Amino acid sequence: MSHSAETNSAEIICVGTELLLGEILNSNAQFLAQQLAQLGIPHYYQTVVGDNPLRLQKVLAIACERSRLLIFTGGLGPTPDDLTTETLADFFEVPLIERPDILEDIARKFASRGRVMSPSNRKQALIPKGAEILPNPWGSAPGIIWQPRSGLTLMTFPGVPSEMQAMWQQTAVPYLQSQGWGKEIIYSQTLRFWGIGESTLAEKVVSFFDLKNPTVAPYAGKGEVRLRVSAKASSEAAALELIEPVAQQLREIAGADYYGNDDDTLAVAVGKLLQDAGQTLSVAESCTGGGLGHLLTSVSGSSSYFKGGVISYDNQVKILLLDVNPEDLAQHGAVSDVVAKQMALGVKQRLATTWGLSITGVAGPTGGTEEKPVGLVYIGLAGPDEQVESFVYSFGSQRSRDWIRWISTCNALDLLRRRLLIPSNP
Amino acid sequence: MSHSAETNSAEIICVGTELLLGEILNSNAQFLAQQLAQLGIPHYYQTVVGDNPLRLQKVLAIACERSRLLIFTGGLGPTPDDLTTETLADFFEVPLIERPDILEDIARKFASRGRVMSPSNRKQALIPKGAEILPNPWGSAPGIIWQPRSGLTLMTFPGVPSEMQAMWQQTAVPYLQSQGWGKEIIYSQTLRFWGIGESTLAEKVVSFFDLKNPTVAPYAGKGEVRLRVSAKASSEAAALELIEPVAQQLREIAGADYYGNDDDTLAVAVGKLLQDAGQTLSVAESCTGGGLGHLLTSVSGSSSYFKGGVISYDNQVKILLLDVNPEDLAQHGAVSDVVAKQMALGVKQRLATTWGLSITGVAGPTGGTEEKPVGLVYIGLAGPDEQVESFVYSFGSQRSRDWIRWISTCNALDLLRRRLLIPSNP
Repeated sequence: MSHSAETNSAEIICVGTELLLGEILNSNAQFLAQQLAQLGIPHYYQTVVGDNPLRLQKVLAIACERSRLLIFTGGLGPTPDDLTTETLADFFEVPLIERPDILEDIARKFASRGRVMSPSNRKQALIPKGAEILPNPWGSAPGIIWQPRSGLTLMTFPGVPSEMQAMWQQTAVPYLQSQGWGKEIIYSQTLRFWGIGESTLAEKVVSFFDLKNPTVAPYAGKGEVRLRVSAKASSEAAALELIEPVAQQLREIAGADYYGNDDDTLAVAVGKLLQDAGQTLSVAESCTGGGLGHLLTSVSGSSSYFKGGVISYDNQVKILLLDVNPEDLAQHGAVSDVVAKQMALGVKQRLATTWGLSITGVAGPTGGTEEKPVGLVYIGLAGPDEQVESFVYSFGSQRSRDWIRWISTCNALDLLRRRLLIPSNP
Repeated sequence: MSHSAETNSAEIICVGTELLLGEILNSNAQFLAQQLAQLGIPHYYQTVVGDNPLRLQKVLAIACERSRLLIFTGGLGPTPDDLTTETLADFFEVPLIERPDILEDIARKFASRGRVMSPSNRKQALIPKGAEILPNPWGSAPGIIWQPRSGLTLMTFPGVPSEMQAMWQQTAVPYLQSQGWGKEIIYSQTLRFWGIGESTLAEKVVSFFDLKNPTVAPYAGKGEVRLRVSAKASSEAAALELIEPVAQQLREIAGADYYGNDDDTLAVAVGKLLQDAGQTLSVAESCTGGGLGHLLTSVSGSSSYFKGGVISYDNQVKILLLDVNPEDLAQHGAVSDVVAKQMALGVKQRLATTWGLSITGVAGPTGGTEEKPVGLVYIGLAGPDEQVESFVYSFGSQRSRDWIRWISTCNALDLLRRRLLIPSNP
């Protein structure tokens, strides 16, 4: 058979009307995309289609012609709108057969949770003749690995991310490697920057955009800019050898605006600096309500430098647990330079940490005034030898509550990060 | 011209190699999908393609044949890999022209931030001849609205979500409405459930899946199950009249497992119940590090019932700010029934609230022991008249740190929610 498919490229096809209605974020596509990149399997297209057999068949017809590995998520559940398996079988004109081993496995899973298998789960035991089972360690729906014709591999996964991910790691990855997929890998490193705009950064490093291997590309998102450095090589180590000297130059050009690589968050960057300095941190949060602490503790091992904090949403808590002066609160209001400083100093002293970091602001959409509009945020930072400073931001009242809370948290971390970068920090 | 496009359907095409590499979540597709559903514009396909003109042209060729409104995100930036506009012009064989009004607008934006416009921004002023500008209130890259041929409309947006969303709301929506898109709307209500599995719920309500208008469909995700009830009608009010009686029956069948609609989180549900009861809440968080407070305060107006809390990441903070008994800490450990109860009672008493809710657990991936494995979490709940109870969960050590923290937060809120549902709650 002759196919015009680009050599050994994969395509992700996510099935689910909930995606077309925007009810959920397509995190499955992101996970699979990352995994394909790591395995060095080229991947040029992603498609989302609803729980509709006719349109799924149309998508399938296009995908078969341009890709050789089709990865499906969604539509494997027990309910009547879960149609992926039967639609694939229909398209390739192959009958479905009931697999007693799957039925047994589903029944066993239900029994272990003290529940009885329901009749609707029975359809999950049907798979196309000739397909292999892709076992699901957690849920009832298994997937399939199927070569309906030479040079074309299909894999199906349920839409529940945790089940899909476990199935991918445990079965799909070893299978793909055993089949010789991903001999030349594409490995990327992403450099992350805070406090610089995309075009400003792009101009500083414009000469790098002409490189061929590795390539360098910028992109912006959620308040920050990133540069992706990607290399093609026979192994991760060989790719890193190509990437590292370029990444090194980019980091030098960007200076303090560079804060980390790949999945490093500002919390990771701050954590490393605190750990290196043998210093500790506590937080006092008003409008972010715990978001700063939550981000800091998303880092495993953060207990060695992060001690905790106070969510002082109510003014009374600022007085009780942070020793904010009630008169200053009354005179200047909770969203003020004075209170931000007292919150930072208060938590630092109560929790006996090297640093105290505070946030107080108007996250909106209600609660803004002419004097203190939505988007006005004060950040306080108390440091070694009881020095305390504060910073004020106007993020604009058009921004969402979520965005104002997020950007406040990141800016607080960035302030501390820049302070920790100064070598003379006592 | 004759086209096989399904009547008035839209298609979302996201352009960006960062999506194919899995570096970012495709939140733009979700936003646009929600918006299209609200406007009643049918939408059957989403495609993701990299910053590659040839493949973008192939996608375009397919999309033109099956959809009549193509919505592009990404590839409008100032850098050399931003190629969407010129690829569209190439495909339809229309020249690009430089628009002095766009140039001026970009220059003005740079000036207002005290920066000088860079030469690379100049290409953002190029648009296909005959296209209209889709203004960008925040960033430098405008989009276009273009009808390159009769019956086909293209819209382009930058990939930065906040800019895309503002442009969509301010210009694209009024344009689409003026052009007569979305005369019959599809309106959905999603019912959300906690504490029941997908197949169990599906069987309780299986007879509803045969309904035609509204339709009812289940789906699962992130620890919860949802039922989507969708109606086609001439207006939102007419759709709601179809939806409401069905939703009412579904809520009655599900009982206490139902907690909210649409964007309602468990934090919203708890907030409403607290507000109705005139009661207040404080939190004490160990392994979730502030996540519970952050979720509670994501609700605007939460200050009327949420007073604040303590992030007691370090044991010393549990003693200092929550009055946990040091001997009990030493004897039972921080992750224990006794400490969870003392944390809940401590924060309730310190902050003088009706309820105190605490979480202490091993979120992993490190820190687990044979006796206290990763995934072991205690939740404490102190209520009116100083009664305090605790609940223990084993979420399993195979789960990620993020997942264990998330599910702990949700379960804590759900426990309080169920307690607040009991009418005899004093």
